[in-house]
Amino acid sequence: MTSLRRLRDAIAAPDAAAAAAARRRLDSLTKPPGSLGRLEELAERLAAISGRVPAIDRPVVFTFAADHGVAAEGVSAYPQVVTAQMVENFLRGGAAINVLARAAGARVVVADFGVAHPLPEDARLVSCRIGPGTASMARGPAMSRDQAVASIEAGARLAAEAIDAGADLLVTGEMGIGNSTAASAITAAITGADPAAVTGPGTGLDDRGRERKVAVVRRALDVNAPDPADGLDVLTKVGGFEIGGLAGVVLAGAARRVPVALDGFIATSAALVAVALAPLARHALLASHRSAEPGHDVALAALGLAPYLDLGLRLGEGTGAALFVHLARAAARIHDEMATFKSAGVSRAAGATAEPEGEP
Amino acid sequence: MTSLRRLRDAIAAPDAAAAAAARRRLDSLTKPPGSLGRLEELAERLAAISGRVPAIDRPVVFTFAADHGVAAEGVSAYPQVVTAQMVENFLRGGAAINVLARAAGARVVVADFGVAHPLPEDARLVSCRIGPGTASMARGPAMSRDQAVASIEAGARLAAEAIDAGADLLVTGEMGIGNSTAASAITAAITGADPAAVTGPGTGLDDRGRERKVAVVRRALDVNAPDPADGLDVLTKVGGFEIGGLAGVVLAGAARRVPVALDGFIATSAALVAVALAPLARHALLASHRSAEPGHDVALAALGLAPYLDLGLRLGEGTGAALFVHLARAAARIHDEMATFKSAGVSRAAGATAEPEGEP
Repeated sequence: MTSLRRLRDAIAAPDAAAAAAARRRLDSLTKPPGSLGRLEELAERLAAISGRVPAIDRPVVFTFAADHGVAAEGVSAYPQVVTAQMVENFLRGGAAINVLARAAGARVVVADFGVAHPLPEDARLVSCRIGPGTASMARGPAMSRDQAVASIEAGARLAAEAIDAGADLLVTGEMGIGNSTAASAITAAITGADPAAVTGPGTGLDDRGRERKVAVVRRALDVNAPDPADGLDVLTKVGGFEIGGLAGVVLAGAARRVPVALDGFIATSAALVAVALAPLARHALLASHRSAEPGHDVALAALGLAPYLDLGLRLGEGTGAALFVHLARAAARIHDEMATFKSAGVSRAAGATAEPEGEP
Repeated sequence: MTSLRRLRDAIAAPDAAAAAAARRRLDSLTKPPGSLGRLEELAERLAAISGRVPAIDRPVVFTFAADHGVAAEGVSAYPQVVTAQMVENFLRGGAAINVLARAAGARVVVADFGVAHPLPEDARLVSCRIGPGTASMARGPAMSRDQAVASIEAGARLAAEAIDAGADLLVTGEMGIGNSTAASAITAAITGADPAAVTGPGTGLDDRGRERKVAVVRRALDVNAPDPADGLDVLTKVGGFEIGGLAGVVLAGAARRVPVALDGFIATSAALVAVALAPLARHALLASHRSAEPGHDVALAALGLAPYLDLGLRLGEGTGAALFVHLARAAARIHDEMATFKSAGVSRAAGATAEPEGEP
């Protein structure tokens, strides 16, 4: 079920009946209708995706790492070796995503999709190496079309394994020096936005560094002319291996009706690729937060998603989506655990029509 | 330590040295400086309040209930008996605050500050009855000055007991049919805002109901002429018993250096009263979320607070602040548990000066 064609064929429309049932139940609970705002909308979305409101007992964070040839163009404040160093940090449990995943009761799957520097032997590190990092998109395609397919299918396979083991929320994360440049190029290619509007400071470029980064994105789009209607072509020419992997997570979640929590700009660019490949995949996505990266809003708008959190995060790794796990779980528990007006014997608003009680 | 005068005297300035130490440690952790945005600012705030970053292991939600004579003026969509019915719902664990507090690992203290309708005998219900509900502020003072002091001191006593038992975050919540009218009047009185700008639909008034509510707030301010510089006078004339109780929680938290998470509009109006009484109490406050009630922004701006969540909530009970507990805990754990660049052997950004490592 993880070949790209079968994944695309398996993705269906959201479950409107399940969403309506969730809405009815939410309106029967002991609170003014709608007074829990986006938490209620989130419970409805979870129902539409999954066919019922899932418990969010087993969220899994996918933190995929890979290197980017474009890092040689001076687009990051950090040296490329940091990708490998941070993978080691993930494995030891010392990175932000480890802390936030623990706090959220989520398991972290750390996978090497193509880190350039050597990594230690470690049984906890999943190998999905597509190559030793991409080629520089400023000089030609970042990868071959076969590699693009392989990265998506590898990500989808990891997601499918997690779902088989009970995962009820897929959380996207990544690490890769240079990958915000890839995300900017993908977002510009697919949405048609000007590169300057979707290219930010990443991990901390100054204004001159950012100008250089914008020029690199322009050059990559000129050199490669990716076809915005062909998600695989965009991924091939200006993407990254870990971004392909996350696109696979999105497609697998959509195909299996398991919600996918997008993290920030890079994860959302992976969703743009996935939705270009399978437009209905959009309905499986939850935008966990609004990143400080300026391109993120453009990418979210193209996907029709409104973020739940807005905390000025710009770290990636899955950190914003890990914080969102608490909201998703809260929404599900509100739906499942609150008393109804009828069961609690609480009077309704003056003029309120007696709604049928929802299913418990 | 819970007499009002002693509380006010005990409130000191924030701990700038502790905040600076937290900042240094955050900058030594394996992430680009500042890349966790408001989560980092929140850890600094926790340090400034407490003198160190607390663990947020024992958050306590104070859900205080009382009735309001002003409910007789037709300012709520719900009948007054709902206050008592919801207290029973809190005690049985079926309300939204019960669900969200359980999800956040927080204990809920349900206290009767003056519910008009009879309540069941229940050992879990804390009695702090100041009277059988307030008088209508549209016709005279809501309560006596002695009652205002008693309500503050009762709330402060409950908070002090919780702190003695280990509470490391005080979460404010309330229930009281009519209490958004009191919050509007308090906010207008203390900030000078026009009643129309700070009076919203509450639990669900239509436009005509809201116009009536604005007129009631105007009348209450005309009839009572509360002195904006005297928090006790404002509470006496247009407040509520549960609002006084929450002002006491704020003052006790500030006096004992335990952070106070404000919920929505009504809890924030209680903070306006507390800060009018003791301006330094402002520094102990964390604005958990932005409520859908239009007056909330005005009240938060007057306190100089920026909310962390913005989810369109308008329920009260402490629900938004209970969601915020996850963020506060995440901020504390980031500070405490992440590896440093040095300990993890991760390279710093090009051009970054080597910061001294923070205390572990």
